[in-house]
Amino acid sequence: MTHHVQIKVMPLKDLLDPQGKAVMGGLDNLGIKEVQDIRIGKHITMEIDAGSKEVAKQIAETTATKLLANPVMEYFEIEVIG
Amino acid sequence: MTHHVQIKVMPLKDLLDPQGKAVMGGLDNLGIKEVQDIRIGKHITMEIDAGSKEVAKQIAETTATKLLANPVMEYFEIEVIG
Repeated sequence: MTHHVQIKVMPLKDLLDPQGKAVMGGLDNLGIKEVQDIRIGKHITMEIDAGSKEVAKQIAETTATKLLANPVMEYFEIEVIG
Repeated sequence: MTHHVQIKVMPLKDLLDPQGKAVMGGLDNLGIKEVQDIRIGKHITMEIDAGSKEVAKQIAETTATKLLANPVMEYFEIEVIG
């Protein structure tokens, strides 16, 4: 059975986010002052053929740990949609 | 009032996703065969000081259109969390 999984990989909360800062600079140039903070990470969608949601989640967790997220700078959250 | 907004920027569905393909190759090296498809985009969180959710959404839309998404290759979805 195919399971649809979403993974969110974001910079750790207390770390500086250079991408976010760059966009803040762009907003300043556009004269947009209402944005107080912006943080940019990765959004990943996966289709996993597995016997159960739990197995699909484990495969997503292995993928995130080994290939998608750098634990020194990022955290990730996994959601099994269906 | 501060509004929390999430933006998802993903590659257009019928476009090749090189990042996704690279991770598929990594999964293959790890001997993980259950993943049928993987697509990688951006997950953005914003804090916007605005008078209403609608105004916050408009500011997020302008930010996405001008600074975050390339309409030739990407689409975006905006969600005002609170």
